[in-house]
Amino acid sequence: MNVSEAYGILMGKVILMTEKVVKEKLEGLGKRMIKEIEKNEGPTFETVLRTKSNTIFDESEGCLRTGDKTETRKFLSVAQAKTFMQTVAVAAKTKKFISEDLHASIRSLFYQLKFTLGEDIDEDMFAEQSESNALIEDLEVALGIKREDLHLTTERKGTVAGPIIIKDKFGGEVNTIDGTAMGRSGWGIPSDVDNDIEFKTTADYVLVVEKDAMWQRLNEDKFWKKENCLVITPKGQASRGTRRLLRKLADKKLPIYCFMDCDAWGWYIYWTIKTGSMNLAYLGHDFAVPEARFLGVSMKDIREFEFLQKLTITAKEVDVKRAEEMLEYPWISRHADWVAELKEVLKTKKKIEQDALQGERLTFVGEYIKDKIAKKKWMS
Amino acid sequence: MNVSEAYGILMGKVILMTEKVVKEKLEGLGKRMIKEIEKNEGPTFETVLRTKSNTIFDESEGCLRTGDKTETRKFLSVAQAKTFMQTVAVAAKTKKFISEDLHASIRSLFYQLKFTLGEDIDEDMFAEQSESNALIEDLEVALGIKREDLHLTTERKGTVAGPIIIKDKFGGEVNTIDGTAMGRSGWGIPSDVDNDIEFKTTADYVLVVEKDAMWQRLNEDKFWKKENCLVITPKGQASRGTRRLLRKLADKKLPIYCFMDCDAWGWYIYWTIKTGSMNLAYLGHDFAVPEARFLGVSMKDIREFEFLQKLTITAKEVDVKRAEEMLEYPWISRHADWVAELKEVLKTKKKIEQDALQGERLTFVGEYIKDKIAKKKWMS
Repeated sequence: MNVSEAYGILMGKVILMTEKVVKEKLEGLGKRMIKEIEKNEGPTFETVLRTKSNTIFDESEGCLRTGDKTETRKFLSVAQAKTFMQTVAVAAKTKKFISEDLHASIRSLFYQLKFTLGEDIDEDMFAEQSESNALIEDLEVALGIKREDLHLTTERKGTVAGPIIIKDKFGGEVNTIDGTAMGRSGWGIPSDVDNDIEFKTTADYVLVVEKDAMWQRLNEDKFWKKENCLVITPKGQASRGTRRLLRKLADKKLPIYCFMDCDAWGWYIYWTIKTGSMNLAYLGHDFAVPEARFLGVSMKDIREFEFLQKLTITAKEVDVKRAEEMLEYPWISRHADWVAELKEVLKTKKKIEQDALQGERLTFVGEYIKDKIAKKKWMS
Repeated sequence: MNVSEAYGILMGKVILMTEKVVKEKLEGLGKRMIKEIEKNEGPTFETVLRTKSNTIFDESEGCLRTGDKTETRKFLSVAQAKTFMQTVAVAAKTKKFISEDLHASIRSLFYQLKFTLGEDIDEDMFAEQSESNALIEDLEVALGIKREDLHLTTERKGTVAGPIIIKDKFGGEVNTIDGTAMGRSGWGIPSDVDNDIEFKTTADYVLVVEKDAMWQRLNEDKFWKKENCLVITPKGQASRGTRRLLRKLADKKLPIYCFMDCDAWGWYIYWTIKTGSMNLAYLGHDFAVPEARFLGVSMKDIREFEFLQKLTITAKEVDVKRAEEMLEYPWISRHADWVAELKEVLKTKKKIEQDALQGERLTFVGEYIKDKIAKKKWMS
């Protein structure tokens, strides 16, 4: 037995355990309903309320999560019966996917349900792009598992370069991928970074860079080699896979530094990585990285680096509105540096993009990041 | 000297040749202008007109391209002088990037110009997302080179799996990437697949799959292994990098089969790969694959596969409008099968997605594709 085989068996064990738990949870859901029916009660389905009023900032965890309010779905009307049937059908289909060891997108799941249940399913109900897909979220929350564990694939996005070795058990083989040997492309972060996959890294820290173009700059500079770090771009808003990867890297005690635009979108991407967002609060700590730090770019940089003064651009309405909103969130407004930053945007009506750092010299960016980290010039 | 070193030197030679030509062209542009100024004439800049009226379908090439009408830009007004200055500045900056052996996004280029030329540059002029970026297109067309050769990076998108070996000369090293060993992630198609990079493939054909979710299905099925083919997803509309890669694979005499949705977007993605699009006609044959064939899904499939009958969805206005438009294009309407297909959409007001093929069984898709190719059931 060689190392790769031994590794495969070891990983196989872990996977069987996870799969076993997930299957038991799905079966438990069904068995409980059958019992209710046998007792001549209507079947019920309990889930946590995912409303704004039941979203809290968890001080001890440092992230957004749903509160304790639950909701019990019953067979009371035709409309409810339909949703109920669909929830059960989703549970049954995903159990089948796990048994077959196959994965499916939400869109494929929609067609499987349409085929089984017939024409009366509303096609928009399962629209792949909708993160708020209520039925799947119901199951995730009710069973305390991730949709990835139900063999549902999600949008893939994000790229990594640097000292990381990935062991991807895929289609009966273990593929070993070296994050330092992927050239201009990097390693694409998959939909699921938890099941059948493991990582080892010798990096000292993780740098998260908002834009792919900036990742390409730092990759060309071999920044990850010079600094012994991982350079990751979520390519805008981080996918579920990227957020899980960052969580797992933070669990390995790697510092997570974020380098974003100084604007509505950059702040939103950062805070979603750090604390989760209102919409996705039900995901909780598994998809949040409260340890994350914001390196820049910031309004302060404009004063510090003279060449940036002519590279600011006018803040748009969305930036101003976002800055005002953020000042209302207690978990942001408690940070004096963030308050100063956002107030400066409101006062000057200016913003600045990370790309502006390349205005004088393309390779300045790396020096900027190194200096920020060395001198601990970040915001939390 | 090992193979990798020898390869590096060989590639280095090719690269130096390309760079030399590009630099000479940029310098030629400048020298010609200086001569005009020395003769007391205003400098001029000649480019090909990129209007609809100067877009033709080239019968011998089988793709859209710009016609022969040219336009000469002169220093006649303040507005023209400004654009002129910017064009020269772009040429100068890209020449600098080539000399430094660094690459830049269009957004970085914008900031470099803003830094050099000052506040009076309109920030929207260089918006990265605008494919119609007039200044860069001007240079590409006038000099007969690609923006990638000017060291400008473009949006990266698209993934490959299958028997392909990529030699990526990157940052002084040659990274060898094996397309059969990339697990669930695949190899990410970079911005530039021409400079400092080479491919070898033993594949029998190329399968282009519109959606990433379907690529994940076929990758999980190891379709590329069973069929000895490359499976590529452009993730929707193909990026410049993906289109160039497909062109290069077609040049190696590999058949290119496309598997798309049967709707406005799927058809558009296919025809852009095959003939180019009206907007990007100036790119011509270098970014077109007239050899491409359309495997499906098609309206005919609905009759052929009974289970698909309840998996159609209602065509939207955009699908109907697109079908009508396509029937107007002579290079489409000459194909009787395409005409029948589009007329069926107009008649039934139905459409069908590639995901629907997974409605009965997730793994049916592979069988469908194999059968289509074996029986030559495609449209051109």
